[in-house]
Amino acid sequence: MDADLPVENGKAKKLRVGILGATDTVGQRFIRMLERHPQFEVTALAACDGSQGEIYKNACVWRLSGEMPEEVKSLFVEPPRPPLDCDFVFSSLPAVVAQEAEEMFARAGYPVISNSSAHRLEPDVPLLIPEVNHQHLQLLESQICQRRYRNDAFIVANPSCSVIVRALALAPLHERFGVASVVVTTMQALSGVGYPGMSSLDAIDNLVPFIDGEEQKIERETVKILGSVENHSVHSAQILLSAQCNRVNITDGHLLAVRVSLLRQAGVAEVGELLATFSSLPQELRLYSAPKRPIIVRNEIDRPQPRLDRDASGGMAISVGRIARDRVLDIRFLVLGHNTIRGRAGAAILSAEMLIANGYL
Amino acid sequence: MDADLPVENGKAKKLRVGILGATDTVGQRFIRMLERHPQFEVTALAACDGSQGEIYKNACVWRLSGEMPEEVKSLFVEPPRPPLDCDFVFSSLPAVVAQEAEEMFARAGYPVISNSSAHRLEPDVPLLIPEVNHQHLQLLESQICQRRYRNDAFIVANPSCSVIVRALALAPLHERFGVASVVVTTMQALSGVGYPGMSSLDAIDNLVPFIDGEEQKIERETVKILGSVENHSVHSAQILLSAQCNRVNITDGHLLAVRVSLLRQAGVAEVGELLATFSSLPQELRLYSAPKRPIIVRNEIDRPQPRLDRDASGGMAISVGRIARDRVLDIRFLVLGHNTIRGRAGAAILSAEMLIANGYL
Amino acid sequence: MDADLPVENGKAKKLRVGILGATDTVGQRFIRMLERHPQFEVTALAACDGSQGEIYKNACVWRLSGEMPEEVKSLFVEPPRPPLDCDFVFSSLPAVVAQEAEEMFARAGYPVISNSSAHRLEPDVPLLIPEVNHQHLQLLESQICQRRYRNDAFIVANPSCSVIVRALALAPLHERFGVASVVVTTMQALSGVGYPGMSSLDAIDNLVPFIDGEEQKIERETVKILGSVENHSVHSAQILLSAQCNRVNITDGHLLAVRVSLLRQAGVAEVGELLATFSSLPQELRLYSAPKRPIIVRNEIDRPQPRLDRDASGGMAISVGRIARDRVLDIRFLVLGHNTIRGRAGAAILSAEMLIANGYL
Amino acid sequence: MDADLPVENGKAKKLRVGILGATDTVGQRFIRMLERHPQFEVTALAACDGSQGEIYKNACVWRLSGEMPEEVKSLFVEPPRPPLDCDFVFSSLPAVVAQEAEEMFARAGYPVISNSSAHRLEPDVPLLIPEVNHQHLQLLESQICQRRYRNDAFIVANPSCSVIVRALALAPLHERFGVASVVVTTMQALSGVGYPGMSSLDAIDNLVPFIDGEEQKIERETVKILGSVENHSVHSAQILLSAQCNRVNITDGHLLAVRVSLLRQAGVAEVGELLATFSSLPQELRLYSAPKRPIIVRNEIDRPQPRLDRDASGGMAISVGRIARDRVLDIRFLVLGHNTIRGRAGAAILSAEMLIANGYL
Repeated sequence: MDADLPVENGKAKKLRVGILGATDTVGQRFIRMLERHPQFEVTALAACDGSQGEIYKNACVWRLSGEMPEEVKSLFVEPPRPPLDCDFVFSSLPAVVAQEAEEMFARAGYPVISNSSAHRLEPDVPLLIPEVNHQHLQLLESQICQRRYRNDAFIVANPSCSVIVRALALAPLHERFGVASVVVTTMQALSGVGYPGMSSLDAIDNLVPFIDGEEQKIERETVKILGSVENHSVHSAQILLSAQCNRVNITDGHLLAVRVSLLRQAGVAEVGELLATFSSLPQELRLYSAPKRPIIVRNEIDRPQPRLDRDASGGMAISVGRIARDRVLDIRFLVLGHNTIRGRAGAAILSAEMLIANGYL
Repeated sequence: MDADLPVENGKAKKLRVGILGATDTVGQRFIRMLERHPQFEVTALAACDGSQGEIYKNACVWRLSGEMPEEVKSLFVEPPRPPLDCDFVFSSLPAVVAQEAEEMFARAGYPVISNSSAHRLEPDVPLLIPEVNHQHLQLLESQICQRRYRNDAFIVANPSCSVIVRALALAPLHERFGVASVVVTTMQALSGVGYPGMSSLDAIDNLVPFIDGEEQKIERETVKILGSVENHSVHSAQILLSAQCNRVNITDGHLLAVRVSLLRQAGVAEVGELLATFSSLPQELRLYSAPKRPIIVRNEIDRPQPRLDRDASGGMAISVGRIARDRVLDIRFLVLGHNTIRGRAGAAILSAEMLIANGYL
Repeated sequence: MDADLPVENGKAKKLRVGILGATDTVGQRFIRMLERHPQFEVTALAACDGSQGEIYKNACVWRLSGEMPEEVKSLFVEPPRPPLDCDFVFSSLPAVVAQEAEEMFARAGYPVISNSSAHRLEPDVPLLIPEVNHQHLQLLESQICQRRYRNDAFIVANPSCSVIVRALALAPLHERFGVASVVVTTMQALSGVGYPGMSSLDAIDNLVPFIDGEEQKIERETVKILGSVENHSVHSAQILLSAQCNRVNITDGHLLAVRVSLLRQAGVAEVGELLATFSSLPQELRLYSAPKRPIIVRNEIDRPQPRLDRDASGGMAISVGRIARDRVLDIRFLVLGHNTIRGRAGAAILSAEMLIANGYL
Repeated sequence: MDADLPVENGKAKKLRVGILGATDTVGQRFIRMLERHPQFEVTALAACDGSQGEIYKNACVWRLSGEMPEEVKSLFVEPPRPPLDCDFVFSSLPAVVAQEAEEMFARAGYPVISNSSAHRLEPDVPLLIPEVNHQHLQLLESQICQRRYRNDAFIVANPSCSVIVRALALAPLHERFGVASVVVTTMQALSGVGYPGMSSLDAIDNLVPFIDGEEQKIERETVKILGSVENHSVHSAQILLSAQCNRVNITDGHLLAVRVSLLRQAGVAEVGELLATFSSLPQELRLYSAPKRPIIVRNEIDRPQPRLDRDASGGMAISVGRIARDRVLDIRFLVLGHNTIRGRAGAAILSAEMLIANGYL
């Protein structure tokens, strides 16, 4: 499918993938999504939860619908330290572990594509959403040059899940009209916390209006993602951001209520048209995991809804609805995305596909 | 308890209450809340759901925890038309029925205290939250004078449930600092729709980001409530309002994420202090249903939460939390209230107590 | 794939299907499952809910994840009366309508495969679970002979959803050991009631220990399904049955706690082996919708669970777990099945495939 | 209220209570239920969760609706070792800690009333449900005699929560008709696991058909409770028991589907009458926490339901419904009880009241 893939015996040779944090829900999602991927095969698993030394089948309880894929059942879970038998790693380690472990892998020559928050805000680390800021990959030149990781390895970070969903909706607006300020109220799914995550006693007949660190993340990451690269570092976008984050009783799918004020005037129909027709480099390159339309605009009065819309395009497209004029800011809308697919594992996999297409992997 | 109550044989004589819409969840809530009320006793029940002619025990399935009170079990459910054997009526009829029915009762000489949206925006109808705008009761002078209902009857309306919760939190801010604009995102409970209301299949593992008419109601009712009475009609407050309303999988308790911009500068601590110490005429008059503190300010990082805080002060106090400086507007906070108590039945009962204290009942 | 299918221009010609009850959740499930079916194509839709005359796209709100299939969007919804432009019909009409409507269609020459309870207990109507009692299809001979529907049309019924799940697990036990009595306690999903079905206010933080008519259905249908055909009618199996049915707060997936006493002694391992290796005619014929293994035996201590196991084999396999010796009866286990797939639409489609293989369609 | 209470200055002096496991949900429930208790006051708190040394206000997050009572806020949380400043202790420690800790307290002279499973099956420890087997308190004579705890201290155990609910319903049947066997399927609430307990990701849109150790507990504890005391030890009742236990997505309230076979024949009406009129020594003694009727028989076709019935009589009465003839065993019914009130804290408090009435406290 991709001309850049090494070919062996007439068949594309797959890149060998290591998954750091393989036993958690995001790790499981990676394994599920890579099960039939044409460019990658999972050859190494690592975790920091005490399951090291066991085969994967015994190391964790499989929490996704459907069976654990056969090919990983007998892989040993190793500690999150190099060496691992793979060409590069996806990391969904907890932030406290990720900081050092990801650095170690990069130093040992493994490209690292990370879901963790550890390196997101470092100036030479691209905070990548392939449809939004693939230009930021040019940061890798200076990163590789300065960090001198072995074999030109590097670290690429994915934003936090709710940021990806929101930034993807904001990017076309920012490019066309200029976004001056954003007010967002999130209703985020339980799987965002990992497993076991939130107690059922806090979730049932309730919601928790607080997610530790999330409001700061949203504010900082968004301006980096929408910023421009100048002199080998990101110049943050000048956008005022306000985020209130809530954890609601939903398995998967973050829903965000968004208002924006724009620098140039925009009509509701114009915004809808712009978002519905948005397409970017991953679509042009026909990357394997790229949704045909990254943004699906729904016209029903009561959509998007998490259970109905989170799986759009295999969970890789976000859904926008209820676009309307706002009486305090300019435009308001709702945006929904699958937090462990588009927001986590799928985001990292799409990033890896983009890195291949750009010659970094 | 109240010097104004008629006394008979040394014992306060209770006002006889009729409940329009007695079989629905709000009607049931009225009955529960009036069960041991010192000033009121339920003597008449009416509904428009085909249960007329049956005794209450058979006319509806009791949906609140605990048993149906003995004293209403054998009352006949009547059609919502005068005459009814009572001194005044509480109405929680559906809006389409309420418009005409409430008018009929008022014309027939029954004071009407209404939860329905039918008459809320009429210029001579007080849209009453006793702690916020008891001054609006002066509208009754002109209403009584002009409408010429028999026996000086009248109509008083209660705002919709999410408006009450929000306006109660905004009122002290508006009075002290002046509110210029408000951005609110609501997460509203299932009981707000009545019974059977939302399908369980729409509620489970989901939320619905749309409540029919709610966003308009919030915008229109709030400016009336916070307005001032001039020349026998309400001069709306000059506040810009933006509301996005969501129905979430929670039985009771509306949670609202609020941002406000203020005309005069206010510090976070100052706002907290102002809200926590807010007290008004119902507190001063020690009305039976008035919470000692209408607004409870919580300092925990993750409160208010619906299941933990909705029953504060018997469901009559609202809870405010997470007050913080906002980067787009000025101040943000969360506010929670029990939608069928403070937002519906309890609101109407407190209004009736206030009407007694003011000599209208 | 199937030699019996009519071939036209070198390509198998599909049978044209009409769906009665097309707008409800089960109708939608039919449409989803038939979307890419090699033997069937949906050409006609009917409903009795007031949507007649509208095109399907406007006639109902699509409630399944993913989009409404393009090919049905512009079909008109017709009343459930012949003629319809199709070769046979699937019916999931409500029982009160189904009784007459299904009879009308059969009389008019349309084979009817029904999910409704209307004709289930009629002695010449096969109550079909293809893996369990395909022999009952011989009832069609006498049905066709005696009812004299036009074109040798007929009625085949599917059991109610919880019965299918249970009977599929009991059938191998009954055949091998003889089942003397069964005690079953069900925990059934919300989608079993259709849409809107149960009120969210009854579902949340609650369960309802009553399903109208279900306990009788289970008791009557099971003995018919497991019975033998003698003299053109079913001789019921001699099994004592006790069912307690509960509706729980789960979207899809009925879980049943079962105890059985057997005529011949059986060990736990023997029962596990028997169920895990069960296979029947649909598997032998490789019917398109037949799961490779109709019964998946799980060995984890806490499985099957609805969310993890309902979609096994596309929702067409049931899952059995926690097989153990019982101290009051003989053996106990849990069994789970997807109620709208294996219990409804999928059951009817598999029945249709079996009818083709047997030359009836 | 109770003549046996020591009186000081004309006012009943309250017994001083220590709570072991004070920071967990059951400990919080104790504190809430003892808030206005006429015979007890909380004077000491202990826990084994690392919160020792802090004042209660800081040692735990209060998880019940309503505020933490003022009087415990500044008590220090101590390790669960004597001495504690109290007259006796309620223990809801985890079993592994309870075994030794409760023994230590008893040896040090503190009567122990325990919710833990540690000592339940010891032959000289009464497994007490005051309405069912207050006669078992005579075991204390031999326990005190043989164990020689200081000051005639002792250990009394409460059964596990689902056992209490079930045994309370079975006791009158066993006494009148003789129970030969019981088949029970439980649907148990989340709060039964404590906090944080079950992950929200396992609870939502799901149920877990397994509760570790519960089926054995039910089988063993029930026969002890319903047994008779002979020669200073309990002679277990000869009842066959089968239990299948499920954890469902409900905060509070265990619902049990029960079938029983009886030694003597009983009609449905007779069973209903027997249960509805059941009353025992706690009722006769008018113990403070004793419900007027321990068993409420509901006649609605769809009750008891957890959310509607768990709080009956302040959570101290159980509710029975759907009594019917069973086709496999003899009689079937549903029974519901509040698991943290009647099943835990309330059970222990009622036991303590009974111990006072019997002169042991």
